[in-house]
Amino acid sequence: MQEKEIRARIKEAIDNVRKNVPLVPSMTNIVTVSYVADAQLAVGASAAMVNLPDEGEKLASISNAFYFNLGTFSTELAATISRTIRVLKNEKKNWVLDPVGIGMGGLRTDTLMMLREFPPQIIRGNASEIIALANLWGLHTGTAAADIKGVDSTADTKSARQSAILLAQHIKGAVAVSGDVDLITDGKVVYWVAGGSELFTKIAGSGCALGGVIAAYAAVDCNPLIAALTGSVVFKTAGIRAAKQADSPASFKIAFLDELYRLAANDAITMPFVEEDA
Amino acid sequence: MQEKEIRARIKEAIDNVRKNVPLVPSMTNIVTVSYVADAQLAVGASAAMVNLPDEGEKLASISNAFYFNLGTFSTELAATISRTIRVLKNEKKNWVLDPVGIGMGGLRTDTLMMLREFPPQIIRGNASEIIALANLWGLHTGTAAADIKGVDSTADTKSARQSAILLAQHIKGAVAVSGDVDLITDGKVVYWVAGGSELFTKIAGSGCALGGVIAAYAAVDCNPLIAALTGSVVFKTAGIRAAKQADSPASFKIAFLDELYRLAANDAITMPFVEEDA
Amino acid sequence: MQEKEIRARIKEAIDNVRKNVPLVPSMTNIVTVSYVADAQLAVGASAAMVNLPDEGEKLASISNAFYFNLGTFSTELAATISRTIRVLKNEKKNWVLDPVGIGMGGLRTDTLMMLREFPPQIIRGNASEIIALANLWGLHTGTAAADIKGVDSTADTKSARQSAILLAQHIKGAVAVSGDVDLITDGKVVYWVAGGSELFTKIAGSGCALGGVIAAYAAVDCNPLIAALTGSVVFKTAGIRAAKQADSPASFKIAFLDELYRLAANDAITMPFVEEDA
Repeated sequence: MQEKEIRARIKEAIDNVRKNVPLVPSMTNIVTVSYVADAQLAVGASAAMVNLPDEGEKLASISNAFYFNLGTFSTELAATISRTIRVLKNEKKNWVLDPVGIGMGGLRTDTLMMLREFPPQIIRGNASEIIALANLWGLHTGTAAADIKGVDSTADTKSARQSAILLAQHIKGAVAVSGDVDLITDGKVVYWVAGGSELFTKIAGSGCALGGVIAAYAAVDCNPLIAALTGSVVFKTAGIRAAKQADSPASFKIAFLDELYRLAANDAITMPFVEEDA
Repeated sequence: MQEKEIRARIKEAIDNVRKNVPLVPSMTNIVTVSYVADAQLAVGASAAMVNLPDEGEKLASISNAFYFNLGTFSTELAATISRTIRVLKNEKKNWVLDPVGIGMGGLRTDTLMMLREFPPQIIRGNASEIIALANLWGLHTGTAAADIKGVDSTADTKSARQSAILLAQHIKGAVAVSGDVDLITDGKVVYWVAGGSELFTKIAGSGCALGGVIAAYAAVDCNPLIAALTGSVVFKTAGIRAAKQADSPASFKIAFLDELYRLAANDAITMPFVEEDA
Repeated sequence: MQEKEIRARIKEAIDNVRKNVPLVPSMTNIVTVSYVADAQLAVGASAAMVNLPDEGEKLASISNAFYFNLGTFSTELAATISRTIRVLKNEKKNWVLDPVGIGMGGLRTDTLMMLREFPPQIIRGNASEIIALANLWGLHTGTAAADIKGVDSTADTKSARQSAILLAQHIKGAVAVSGDVDLITDGKVVYWVAGGSELFTKIAGSGCALGGVIAAYAAVDCNPLIAALTGSVVFKTAGIRAAKQADSPASFKIAFLDELYRLAANDAITMPFVEEDA
């Protein structure tokens, strides 16, 4: 796609979420669940959070796309993701995986290994998580360095470039690496989106909120690359505006959510990004 | 009751929550639990959230009223609501049911069917949820339309009027339908409260917070109709004031909680509402 | 230690959390988990919240200190705290216990009794909780009054002085009692820190957030007394500043978290406190 077409598709995705109010349920963690919901509502989607397996299946069947985040994982959630993604697969609906906490425990590792065979259309994570997932799935020849400090990345986006490309090729979808600079790839092209604010790292859950918002765009544009790029561009644009109003994390978060809501499709498509071959 | 008496009772409920600081525990969902607690604290109540069955029973025995919300339901919570409401029934304490997510799964449906026989004093929901609950409980002759999009209503308050009246008559209590216009009924009279802000629909959990606050008023006034009407009047009043300060959802939520706290009993009782026969 | 040395250690703890960004995971409740994480991030630590037992063990092994809060307790969390603290004990890492909801149910009581034998380095609670824990552990001759209203204290800090000292002596660590005035003791000396704002009582989770922040300081200073005192001094200082900007709870919480982030080590060490013998 040419840049002009990409930007037209971004504008369309933003407009269509506002217009169609897609239902984008989430199975997500207890820390940031309200932030995910508020971010999804701010961009115009309808949010619904689920815990039980059969409720995941039911929501999947009436949803337009789904978001899965493995933070604060539980035995109940392991059954829920497993059963819910089968419905999504049958109904050919997009879903986003956020492998937060990768490497933490057995059930999480088992679940992520199962997802290797039932892959999402989009993966979103920080650099450490993306490297760790490519390693776990055996996509690297050898093992790339993937040091994670709890849920925070110790790597920068650039170091996850190869892992992101390999993951995108494996899932035949898109991968978004979040950081000071975001990287979005479908395994063929790579986009770099700079900007935002370092205050994002001082509030819990901005990555989760981005994952939920990418799922919202994946509900109205079936191309995973466009959905992931739209989410990144929207977050960076709103983040830059929020950082002009607030110099500390809590007021920054309020300003950021407000700017997500205020953001017009025409604003976001002026955000600069760089394209290169994978 | 005459309007003058109603308004005196509303004022009294607001004052008494501030004065007596009733203990109003909740069993509620992971998305909006902090919003519920903060709203209850803002109007002057003491909040306490519970998960385990025996802790629900213990809290029920020392509580003044209780709030149950079925969002992000779990097997542990199904046992908790079942055991906790038995204590509340024995001790003749008021409790509020919020049937969020009705129709989502088997355990939720089983629990709601059980509650048909052990009904709450107050039910609060959006229009779609109220219609769906009246259908589930077989209160309609035939079946009313009840399309739900996840947790969001697709119906307007007016369309839930008959369902609300039937539910109120069944539980011999009060039903509150929330929306652009709130409807509150005890099956005999119907109150309509307009106002608020559409920004309420852009933040997750305002309905849940209202349910928790209605439970706070139900802790100091044993009349379910007055408790539900007080909650609605208080929310609409604070919402109108917040909307004058903030034009976007995140800052609106902060302004709204602040206004809940600032609201004096004398302010709220000037809120217009319309009464009609059921 | 002399006051001058105490103040130097406080300054050092504040600086070192900012400089070293210690990993301070939490097992905490669904109500206030995002507030805990945001407060820990604001003072410079890295936060990570956990649910499953083996993930608690893994996080413990890579953590610098840990925070455990018993609010909204569950069967899964009971296994997690039990297994995680064994790792912490083996690796001689500090951890903080917040006995929220003490007295509520059987599993919670069993867990707290187990912790009598595997004690934390620091306990933080409100006055009622501290008195109740000293009673539960049989540290008083006779039984002190410990009336709790759900999760809110009905006692003032002074009334918990003896219980706090007994608990500190039992655990050979420090105890922090939070309230209008905070008390911190290691069983030998007692510090009193006044200030803050009564608005803290109108938002859910300030005590939990303090517990999480004390754990952050316990990650960089192995002396429990200094860690607890630093947390208290930091909270009171930021609270006083926030109260100058906001007169209502929701905007106060935003201002408070912002002030936690803005606070320089030099600011905090000017906070007055009073020392006396235990």
